[in-house]
Amino acid sequence: MEPIKPYKKDFDYSYALGAFPTMELLNKCPEEALCVYVHSSFTEAEMIQAKCRELSVPVLSGDKVIARVSDKENVFAVGVFRKYERKLQADKPHLMLVNPSNMGNLGTILRTCLAMGIHDIAIIRPGVDVFHPKAVRASMGALFSLRVQYFASYAEYAGAYLGGGSERQVFSFMLTGKKQLTVSECPKPELYTLIFGNEATGLPEEYAEYGESLLIPQSPEVDSLNLTIAVGIGTYLFSQR
Amino acid sequence: MEPIKPYKKDFDYSYALGAFPTMELLNKCPEEALCVYVHSSFTEAEMIQAKCRELSVPVLSGDKVIARVSDKENVFAVGVFRKYERKLQADKPHLMLVNPSNMGNLGTILRTCLAMGIHDIAIIRPGVDVFHPKAVRASMGALFSLRVQYFASYAEYAGAYLGGGSERQVFSFMLTGKKQLTVSECPKPELYTLIFGNEATGLPEEYAEYGESLLIPQSPEVDSLNLTIAVGIGTYLFSQR
Repeated sequence: MEPIKPYKKDFDYSYALGAFPTMELLNKCPEEALCVYVHSSFTEAEMIQAKCRELSVPVLSGDKVIARVSDKENVFAVGVFRKYERKLQADKPHLMLVNPSNMGNLGTILRTCLAMGIHDIAIIRPGVDVFHPKAVRASMGALFSLRVQYFASYAEYAGAYLGGGSERQVFSFMLTGKKQLTVSECPKPELYTLIFGNEATGLPEEYAEYGESLLIPQSPEVDSLNLTIAVGIGTYLFSQR
Repeated sequence: MEPIKPYKKDFDYSYALGAFPTMELLNKCPEEALCVYVHSSFTEAEMIQAKCRELSVPVLSGDKVIARVSDKENVFAVGVFRKYERKLQADKPHLMLVNPSNMGNLGTILRTCLAMGIHDIAIIRPGVDVFHPKAVRASMGALFSLRVQYFASYAEYAGAYLGGGSERQVFSFMLTGKKQLTVSECPKPELYTLIFGNEATGLPEEYAEYGESLLIPQSPEVDSLNLTIAVGIGTYLFSQR
Protein backbone atom coordinates (compact mmCIF):
# COMPACT_ATOMS: atom_id res chain seq x y z
CA MET A 1 0.00 0.00 0.00
CA GLU A 2 0.99 3.64 -0.38
CA PRO A 3 2.93 5.44 2.38
CA ILE A 4 0.83 6.21 5.44
CA LYS A 5 -0.13 9.88 5.83
CA PRO A 6 -2.22 12.06 8.13
CA TYR A 7 -5.86 11.24 7.40
CA LYS A 8 -7.86 13.10 4.82
CA LYS A 9 -11.54 12.70 4.12
CA ASP A 10 -11.04 11.59 0.51
CA PHE A 11 -8.77 8.67 1.44
CA ASP A 12 -10.29 5.26 0.86
CA TYR A 13 -8.74 4.07 4.12
CA SER A 14 -8.53 5.35 7.68
CA TYR A 15 -6.95 4.60 11.06
CA ALA A 16 -8.08 3.08 14.33
CA LEU A 17 -5.84 4.84 16.86
CA GLY A 18 -5.03 2.90 20.00
CA ALA A 19 -4.81 -0.74 20.99
CA PHE A 20 -8.44 -1.06 22.08
CA PRO A 21 -10.01 0.34 18.89
CA THR A 22 -7.52 -1.71 16.84
CA MET A 23 -8.65 -4.91 18.58
CA GLU A 24 -12.26 -3.95 17.89
CA LEU A 25 -11.35 -3.54 14.22
CA LEU A 26 -9.70 -6.97 14.11
CA ASN A 27 -12.54 -8.69 15.98
CA LYS A 28 -15.57 -7.03 14.44
CA CYS A 29 -14.48 -5.95 11.00
CA PRO A 30 -11.53 -8.19 10.04
CA GLU A 31 -12.33 -8.15 6.31
CA GLU A 32 -11.47 -4.42 6.14
CA ALA A 33 -8.22 -4.53 8.14
CA LEU A 34 -5.22 -3.75 5.91
CA CYS A 35 -2.34 -3.73 8.39
CA VAL A 36 -1.47 -2.81 11.98
CA TYR A 37 1.38 -0.60 13.16
CA VAL A 38 2.78 -1.34 16.62
CA HIS A 39 4.95 1.07 18.61
CA SER A 40 8.30 -0.18 19.85
CA SER A 41 7.44 0.80 23.43
CA PHE A 42 4.16 -1.16 23.45
CA THR A 43 4.64 -3.91 25.99
CA GLU A 44 1.32 -5.65 25.50
CA ALA A 45 1.34 -6.16 21.75
CA GLU A 46 1.02 -9.94 21.94
CA MET A 47 -2.76 -10.13 21.74
CA ILE A 48 -2.82 -7.90 18.67
CA GLN A 49 0.02 -9.81 17.03
CA ALA A 50 -1.67 -13.15 17.62
CA LYS A 51 -4.96 -11.91 16.21
CA CYS A 52 -3.19 -10.47 13.15
CA ARG A 53 -1.43 -13.81 12.53
CA GLU A 54 -4.77 -15.59 12.69
CA LEU A 55 -6.25 -13.15 10.16
CA SER A 56 -3.12 -12.86 8.00
CA VAL A 57 -3.03 -9.10 8.60
CA PRO A 58 0.52 -7.70 8.42
CA VAL A 59 1.99 -6.25 11.62
CA LEU A 60 4.51 -3.47 11.02
CA SER A 61 6.70 -1.53 13.38
CA GLY A 62 6.71 2.20 12.86
CA ASP A 63 7.09 4.70 15.67
CA LYS A 64 7.35 7.59 13.20
CA VAL A 65 4.29 6.47 11.28
CA ILE A 66 2.29 6.29 14.49
CA ALA A 67 3.45 9.75 15.58
CA ARG A 68 2.51 11.15 12.18
CA VAL A 69 -1.08 9.95 12.15
CA SER A 70 -1.98 10.27 15.81
CA ASP A 71 -1.22 13.87 16.84
CA LYS A 72 0.04 14.08 20.40
CA GLU A 73 -1.93 11.42 22.16
CA ASN A 74 -0.43 8.26 23.58
CA VAL A 75 -1.02 5.73 20.86
CA PHE A 76 0.72 2.35 20.87
CA ALA A 77 -1.07 0.69 17.98
CA VAL A 78 -2.73 1.88 14.77
CA GLY A 79 -5.03 -0.32 12.72
CA VAL A 80 -5.22 0.72 9.07
CA PHE A 81 -8.56 -0.21 7.49
CA ARG A 82 -10.41 0.15 4.23
CA LYS A 83 -13.46 2.43 4.48
CA TYR A 84 -16.72 0.71 3.70
CA GLU A 85 -20.40 1.31 3.16
CA ARG A 86 -23.21 -0.48 4.90
CA LYS A 87 -26.94 -0.22 4.50
CA LEU A 88 -29.15 0.02 7.55
CA GLN A 89 -31.30 -2.95 8.50
CA ALA A 90 -34.94 -2.23 7.72
CA ASP A 91 -36.27 -4.29 10.62
CA LYS A 92 -34.17 -2.75 13.39
CA PRO A 93 -34.37 0.50 15.41
CA HIS A 94 -32.43 3.42 13.93
CA LEU A 95 -30.76 6.47 15.40
CA MET A 96 -30.68 9.46 13.05
CA LEU A 97 -28.27 12.37 13.44
CA VAL A 98 -29.05 15.46 11.42
CA ASN A 99 -25.96 17.53 10.58
CA PRO A 100 -23.69 16.40 13.43
CA SER A 101 -20.66 18.71 13.59
CA ASN A 102 -18.36 17.35 16.30
CA MET A 103 -16.30 14.20 15.81
CA GLY A 104 -15.83 13.54 19.50
CA ASN A 105 -19.57 13.75 20.09
CA LEU A 106 -20.24 11.47 17.12
CA GLY A 107 -17.86 8.86 18.53
CA THR A 108 -19.44 9.04 22.00
CA ILE A 109 -22.88 8.67 20.44
CA LEU A 110 -21.78 5.58 18.47
CA ARG A 111 -20.48 3.99 21.66
CA THR A 112 -23.71 4.86 23.49
CA CYS A 113 -25.87 3.37 20.72
CA LEU A 114 -23.92 0.13 20.83
CA ALA A 115 -24.32 0.02 24.63
CA MET A 116 -28.09 0.43 24.19
CA GLY A 117 -28.35 -2.21 21.48
CA ILE A 118 -28.96 0.17 18.58
CA HIS A 119 -26.76 -0.92 15.66
CA ASP A 120 -28.07 1.23 12.81
CA ILE A 121 -27.17 4.92 12.48
CA ALA A 122 -28.41 7.29 9.78
CA ILE A 123 -26.59 10.58 9.21
CA ILE A 124 -28.17 13.39 7.22
CA ARG A 125 -25.58 15.45 5.37
CA PRO A 126 -23.85 17.76 5.91
CA GLY A 127 -22.34 15.85 8.80
CA VAL A 128 -18.87 15.02 10.06
CA ASP A 129 -16.96 12.03 8.68
CA VAL A 130 -17.63 8.94 10.79
CA PHE A 131 -14.37 7.40 9.54
CA HIS A 132 -12.22 10.28 10.78
CA PRO A 133 -9.69 8.82 13.24
CA LYS A 134 -10.97 11.18 15.97
CA ALA A 135 -14.50 9.83 15.62
CA VAL A 136 -13.29 6.22 15.48
CA ARG A 137 -11.20 6.75 18.59
CA ALA A 138 -13.98 8.55 20.51
CA SER A 139 -16.23 5.59 19.68
CA MET A 140 -13.62 3.27 21.23
CA GLY A 141 -13.99 1.19 18.10
CA ALA A 142 -17.78 0.84 18.50
CA LEU A 143 -17.99 1.97 14.88
CA PHE A 144 -16.86 -1.50 13.77
CA SER A 145 -19.93 -3.11 15.32
CA LEU A 146 -22.41 -0.71 13.72
CA ARG A 147 -23.96 0.06 10.37
CA VAL A 148 -23.69 3.78 9.50
CA GLN A 149 -25.31 5.16 6.37
CA TYR A 150 -25.26 8.75 5.04
CA PHE A 151 -28.22 10.39 3.30
CA ALA A 152 -28.47 13.63 1.34
CA SER A 153 -31.78 14.49 2.99
CA TYR A 154 -34.53 13.24 5.25
CA ALA A 155 -36.57 12.55 2.13
CA GLU A 156 -33.92 10.15 0.86
CA TYR A 157 -33.96 8.29 4.18
CA ALA A 158 -37.77 8.21 4.21
CA GLY A 159 -37.83 6.82 0.69
CA ALA A 160 -35.60 3.95 1.76
CA TYR A 161 -36.95 3.08 5.21
CA LEU A 162 -40.41 4.57 5.72
CA GLY A 163 -43.64 3.92 3.88
CA GLY A 164 -44.31 0.74 1.95
CA GLY A 165 -46.17 -0.71 4.91
CA SER A 166 -43.31 -0.23 7.38
CA GLU A 167 -44.49 0.01 10.97
CA ARG A 168 -41.55 2.17 11.90
CA GLN A 169 -42.43 5.10 14.17
CA VAL A 170 -40.40 8.30 14.04
CA PHE A 171 -39.56 10.50 17.05
CA SER A 172 -37.92 13.91 16.78
CA PHE A 173 -36.11 15.24 19.86
CA MET A 174 -36.64 19.01 19.99
CA LEU A 175 -36.71 21.79 22.56
CA THR A 176 -40.09 22.65 21.06
CA GLY A 177 -41.23 19.02 21.38
CA LYS A 178 -44.95 18.63 22.01
CA LYS A 179 -44.67 15.73 24.41
CA GLN A 180 -42.54 15.55 27.54
CA LEU A 181 -40.53 12.33 27.53
CA THR A 182 -41.19 11.08 31.06
CA VAL A 183 -40.37 7.60 32.28
CA SER A 184 -44.03 6.64 32.58
CA GLU A 185 -45.08 8.01 29.21
CA CYS A 186 -42.27 6.86 26.96
CA PRO A 187 -43.76 5.32 23.81
CA LYS A 188 -43.03 1.62 23.34
CA PRO A 189 -43.04 0.89 19.62
CA GLU A 190 -41.55 -2.29 18.20
CA LEU A 191 -39.67 -0.43 15.48
CA TYR A 192 -38.54 3.18 15.73
CA THR A 193 -36.22 5.91 14.53
CA LEU A 194 -34.96 8.47 17.06
CA ILE A 195 -33.86 11.76 15.50
CA PHE A 196 -31.46 14.29 17.03
CA GLY A 197 -30.22 17.58 15.57
CA ASN A 198 -27.00 19.55 15.43
CA GLU A 199 -25.08 20.35 18.65
CA ALA A 200 -25.62 24.10 18.39
CA THR A 201 -28.80 24.54 16.39
CA GLY A 202 -30.89 21.44 17.14
CA LEU A 203 -33.37 20.06 14.61
CA PRO A 204 -34.91 22.23 11.89
CA GLU A 205 -38.55 23.03 12.68
CA GLU A 206 -39.91 20.81 9.88
CA TYR A 207 -38.81 17.72 11.79
CA ALA A 208 -41.76 18.30 14.13
CA GLU A 209 -43.92 17.16 11.21
CA TYR A 210 -41.93 14.05 10.35
CA GLY A 211 -42.87 12.19 13.50
CA GLU A 212 -43.89 12.67 17.10
CA SER A 213 -41.84 15.48 18.65
CA LEU A 214 -40.43 14.81 22.10
CA LEU A 215 -38.82 16.99 24.75
CA ILE A 216 -36.64 15.59 27.53
CA PRO A 217 -37.83 17.39 30.68
CA GLN A 218 -35.16 19.83 31.82
CA SER A 219 -34.86 22.81 34.11
CA PRO A 220 -35.32 26.26 32.56
CA GLU A 221 -32.00 27.07 34.25
CA VAL A 222 -30.13 25.60 31.25
CA ASP A 223 -30.65 26.41 27.59
CA SER A 224 -30.44 22.76 26.55
CA LEU A 225 -28.90 19.42 27.36
CA ASN A 226 -25.64 18.47 25.67
CA LEU A 227 -26.42 16.44 22.51
CA THR A 228 -24.62 13.32 23.70
CA ILE A 229 -26.55 13.37 27.01
CA ALA A 230 -29.87 13.75 25.20
CA VAL A 231 -29.01 10.78 22.96
CA GLY A 232 -27.99 8.77 26.04
CA ILE A 233 -31.30 9.38 27.80
CA GLY A 234 -33.38 8.85 24.65
CA THR A 235 -31.73 5.60 23.59
CA TYR A 236 -31.82 4.28 27.17
CA LEU A 237 -35.55 4.90 27.49
CA PHE A 238 -36.50 3.45 24.13
CA SER A 239 -34.31 0.41 24.54
CA GLN A 240 -35.99 -0.33 27.91
CA ARG A 241 -39.09 -1.87 26.34
CA MET B 1 -6.14 43.94 40.36
CA GLU B 2 -2.95 42.30 39.21
CA PRO B 3 -2.23 41.71 35.51
CA ILE B 4 -4.32 38.91 33.98
CA LYS B 5 -2.39 35.70 33.26
CA PRO B 6 -3.07 32.20 31.99
CA TYR B 7 -4.97 30.39 34.75
CA LYS B 8 -3.20 28.41 37.44
CA LYS B 9 -4.84 26.30 40.08
CA ASP B 10 -3.45 28.32 42.99
CA PHE B 11 -4.92 31.63 41.76
CA ASP B 12 -7.71 32.98 43.92
CA TYR B 13 -9.57 34.02 40.78
CA SER B 14 -10.49 32.40 37.46
CA TYR B 15 -12.11 33.13 34.11
CA ALA B 16 -15.45 32.53 32.49
CA LEU B 17 -14.54 32.26 28.80
CA GLY B 18 -17.21 33.32 26.35
CA ALA B 19 -20.20 35.63 26.35
CA PHE B 20 -22.71 33.03 27.52
CA PRO B 21 -20.73 31.82 30.56
CA THR B 22 -19.90 35.45 31.38
CA MET B 23 -23.60 36.36 31.41
CA GLU B 24 -24.25 33.37 33.68
CA LEU B 25 -21.57 34.68 36.02
CA LEU B 26 -23.13 38.15 36.10
CA ASN B 27 -26.66 36.83 36.56
CA LYS B 28 -26.09 33.99 39.01
CA CYS B 29 -22.97 34.93 40.91
CA PRO B 30 -22.64 38.73 40.65
CA GLU B 31 -20.98 39.09 44.06
CA GLU B 32 -17.88 37.24 42.79
CA ALA B 33 -17.51 39.09 39.46
CA LEU B 34 -14.35 41.22 39.42
CA CYS B 35 -14.32 42.59 35.88
CA VAL B 36 -15.20 41.67 32.32
CA TYR B 37 -12.95 41.89 29.25
CA VAL B 38 -14.68 42.46 25.92
CA HIS B 39 -13.07 41.85 22.53
CA SER B 40 -13.03 44.73 20.04
CA SER B 41 -14.69 42.55 17.39
CA PHE B 42 -17.60 41.56 19.65
CA THR B 43 -20.68 43.08 18.07
CA GLU B 44 -23.19 42.06 20.71
CA ALA B 45 -21.50 43.37 23.83
CA GLU B 46 -24.41 45.62 24.82
CA MET B 47 -26.20 43.15 27.06
CA ILE B 48 -23.00 42.40 28.98
CA GLN B 49 -22.13 46.09 29.24
CA ALA B 50 -25.58 46.98 30.55
CA LYS B 51 -25.46 44.22 33.14
CA CYS B 52 -22.00 45.29 34.26
CA ARG B 53 -23.16 48.89 34.67
CA GLU B 54 -26.07 47.72 36.79
CA LEU B 55 -23.68 45.69 38.99
CA SER B 56 -20.85 48.25 38.96
CA VAL B 57 -18.51 45.63 37.47
CA PRO B 58 -15.76 47.24 35.33
CA VAL B 59 -15.79 46.48 31.59
CA LEU B 60 -12.35 46.54 30.00
CA SER B 61 -11.23 46.18 26.43
CA GLY B 62 -8.36 43.79 25.88
CA ASP B 63 -7.94 41.67 22.79
CA LYS B 64 -4.47 40.56 23.88
CA VAL B 65 -5.64 39.65 27.35
CA ILE B 66 -8.45 37.56 25.91
CA ALA B 67 -6.08 35.78 23.52
CA ARG B 68 -3.69 35.08 26.39
CA VAL B 69 -6.20 33.36 28.66
CA SER B 70 -8.38 31.59 26.13
CA ASP B 71 -6.08 29.47 23.94
CA LYS B 72 -7.25 29.31 20.37
CA GLU B 73 -10.98 29.24 20.73
CA ASN B 74 -13.27 32.00 19.59
CA VAL B 75 -13.84 33.99 22.75
CA PHE B 76 -15.38 37.46 22.66
CA ALA B 77 -15.80 38.07 26.37
CA VAL B 78 -14.03 36.94 29.54
CA GLY B 79 -15.53 37.34 33.00
CA VAL B 80 -12.93 37.43 35.76
CA PHE B 81 -14.30 36.14 39.06
CA ARG B 82 -13.17 35.43 42.59
CA LYS B 83 -13.12 31.74 43.45
CA TYR B 84 -15.47 30.81 46.28
CA GLU B 85 -16.48 27.96 48.54
CA ARG B 86 -19.99 26.74 49.12
CA LYS B 87 -21.34 24.07 51.39
CA LEU B 88 -23.86 21.59 50.07
CA GLN B 89 -27.45 21.79 51.22
CA ALA B 90 -28.24 18.98 53.64
CA ASP B 91 -31.87 18.67 52.57
CA LYS B 92 -31.28 18.40 48.81
CA PRO B 93 -30.20 15.59 46.46
CA HIS B 94 -26.45 15.37 45.84
CA LEU B 95 -24.31 14.14 42.99
CA MET B 96 -20.93 12.80 44.08
CA LEU B 97 -17.96 12.44 41.71
CA VAL B 98 -15.08 10.33 42.97
CA ASN B 99 -11.72 11.35 41.44
CA PRO B 100 -12.99 12.95 38.22
CA SER B 101 -10.03 13.48 35.87
CA ASN B 102 -11.35 15.30 32.81
CA MET B 103 -12.33 18.97 32.90
CA GLY B 104 -14.56 18.80 29.84
CA ASN B 105 -16.49 15.89 31.34
CA LEU B 106 -16.81 17.71 34.65
CA GLY B 107 -18.27 20.75 32.92
CA THR B 108 -20.73 18.64 30.93
CA ILE B 109 -21.78 16.88 34.15
CA LEU B 110 -22.38 20.21 35.91
CA ARG B 111 -24.58 21.37 33.06
CA THR B 112 -26.47 18.06 33.11
CA CYS B 113 -27.05 18.25 36.87
CA LEU B 114 -28.46 21.75 36.57
CA ALA B 115 -30.77 20.56 33.77
CA MET B 116 -32.02 17.77 36.04
CA GLY B 117 -32.53 20.04 39.03
CA ILE B 118 -29.59 18.77 41.09
CA HIS B 119 -27.75 21.79 42.52
CA ASP B 120 -25.32 20.16 44.97
CA ILE B 121 -22.13 18.42 43.80
CA ALA B 122 -19.62 16.66 46.03
CA ILE B 123 -16.14 15.90 44.66
CA ILE B 124 -13.86 13.41 46.40
CA ARG B 125 -10.21 14.32 45.97
CA PRO B 126 -8.06 13.87 44.01
CA GLY B 127 -10.24 15.46 41.37
CA VAL B 128 -9.88 18.11 38.69
CA ASP B 129 -10.33 21.78 39.53
CA VAL B 130 -13.93 22.85 38.99
CA PHE B 131 -12.81 26.47 38.61
CA HIS B 132 -10.44 25.73 35.72
CA PRO B 133 -11.61 27.84 32.76
CA LYS B 134 -12.02 24.67 30.65
CA ALA B 135 -14.45 23.20 33.18
CA VAL B 136 -16.32 26.48 33.57
CA ARG B 137 -16.64 26.80 29.81
CA ALA B 138 -17.72 23.17 29.32
CA SER B 139 -20.40 23.79 31.95
CA MET B 140 -21.64 26.76 29.88
CA GLY B 141 -21.58 28.69 33.15
CA ALA B 142 -23.83 26.17 34.95
CA LEU B 143 -21.17 26.20 37.69
CA PHE B 144 -22.47 29.58 38.85
CA SER B 145 -25.88 28.12 39.68
CA LEU B 146 -24.50 25.18 41.68
CA ARG B 147 -22.89 24.44 45.01
CA VAL B 148 -19.69 22.39 44.62
CA GLN B 149 -17.81 21.13 47.66
CA TYR B 150 -14.56 19.10 47.76
CA PHE B 151 -13.88 16.39 50.34
CA ALA B 152 -10.68 14.56 51.20
CA SER B 153 -12.50 11.25 51.45
CA TYR B 154 -15.88 9.56 51.44
CA ALA B 155 -15.66 9.42 55.23
CA GLU B 156 -15.41 13.19 55.42
CA TYR B 157 -18.51 13.55 53.26
CA ALA B 158 -20.37 10.93 55.29
CA GLY B 159 -19.49 12.73 58.52
CA ALA B 160 -21.01 15.92 57.20
CA TYR B 161 -24.11 14.68 55.36
CA LEU B 162 -24.98 11.15 56.42
CA GLY B 163 -25.97 9.76 59.81
CA GLY B 164 -27.48 11.94 62.52
CA GLY B 165 -30.96 10.84 61.55
CA SER B 166 -30.60 11.87 57.89
CA GLU B 167 -32.92 9.97 55.58
CA ARG B 168 -30.51 10.35 52.71
CA GLN B 169 -30.10 7.19 50.61
CA VAL B 170 -26.84 6.51 48.80
CA PHE B 171 -26.53 4.86 45.38
CA SER B 172 -23.22 3.80 43.83
CA PHE B 173 -23.11 3.39 40.04
CA MET B 174 -20.78 0.47 39.25
CA LEU B 175 -20.24 -2.09 36.51
CA THR B 176 -20.44 -4.65 39.32
CA GLY B 177 -23.68 -3.10 40.62
CA LYS B 178 -26.04 -5.61 42.21
CA LYS B 179 -29.23 -4.09 40.87
CA GLN B 180 -30.03 -3.28 37.25
CA LEU B 181 -31.35 0.27 37.00
CA THR B 182 -34.43 -0.26 34.84
CA VAL B 183 -37.13 2.33 34.30
CA SER B 184 -39.68 0.35 36.29
CA GLU B 185 -37.39 -0.44 39.20
CA CYS B 186 -35.66 2.87 39.79
CA PRO B 187 -35.76 3.64 43.52
CA LYS B 188 -37.75 6.74 44.45
CA PRO B 189 -36.26 8.17 47.63
CA GLU B 190 -37.03 11.71 48.78
CA LEU B 191 -33.38 12.47 49.48
CA TYR B 192 -30.46 10.79 47.75
CA THR B 193 -26.81 10.90 46.78
CA LEU B 194 -25.79 9.43 43.41
CA ILE B 195 -22.13 8.40 43.24
CA PHE B 196 -20.06 8.01 40.06
CA GLY B 197 -16.39 7.06 39.72
CA ASN B 198 -13.43 8.03 37.60
CA GLU B 199 -13.68 8.02 33.78
CA ALA B 200 -11.18 5.20 33.32
CA THR B 201 -11.31 3.20 36.53
CA GLY B 202 -14.84 3.62 37.84
CA LEU B 203 -15.63 3.45 41.55
CA PRO B 204 -13.37 1.61 44.02
CA GLU B 205 -14.94 -1.67 45.13
CA GLU B 206 -15.62 -0.43 48.67
CA TYR B 207 -18.29 1.92 47.34
CA ALA B 208 -20.52 -1.13 46.90
CA GLU B 209 -20.76 -1.14 50.72
CA TYR B 210 -21.56 2.55 51.13
CA GLY B 211 -24.99 2.33 49.57
CA GLU B 212 -27.07 0.37 47.10
CA SER B 213 -24.98 -0.46 44.05
CA LEU B 214 -26.65 0.08 40.67
CA LEU B 215 -25.77 -0.93 37.13
CA ILE B 216 -27.22 0.82 34.08
CA PRO B 217 -28.22 -2.02 31.73
CA GLN B 218 -25.86 -2.06 28.75
CA SER B 219 -24.86 -4.43 26.00
CA PRO B 220 -21.83 -6.67 26.59
CA GLU B 221 -20.61 -5.31 23.23
CA VAL B 222 -19.14 -2.25 25.02
CA ASP B 223 -16.86 -2.21 28.05
CA SER B 224 -18.76 0.64 29.70
CA LEU B 225 -20.81 3.74 29.08
CA ASN B 226 -19.05 7.08 28.91
CA LEU B 227 -19.13 8.70 32.39
CA THR B 228 -21.10 11.74 31.28
CA ILE B 229 -23.75 9.51 29.64
CA ALA B 230 -24.07 7.39 32.78
CA VAL B 231 -24.55 10.55 34.87
CA GLY B 232 -27.13 11.81 32.37
CA ILE B 233 -29.20 8.64 32.58
CA GLY B 234 -28.86 8.34 36.37
CA THR B 235 -29.79 11.93 37.16
CA TYR B 236 -32.67 11.84 34.67
CA LEU B 237 -34.16 8.71 36.25
CA PHE B 238 -33.83 9.88 39.86
CA SER B 239 -35.14 13.35 39.10
CA GLN B 240 -38.25 11.81 37.47
CA ARG B 241 -39.95 11.06 40.78
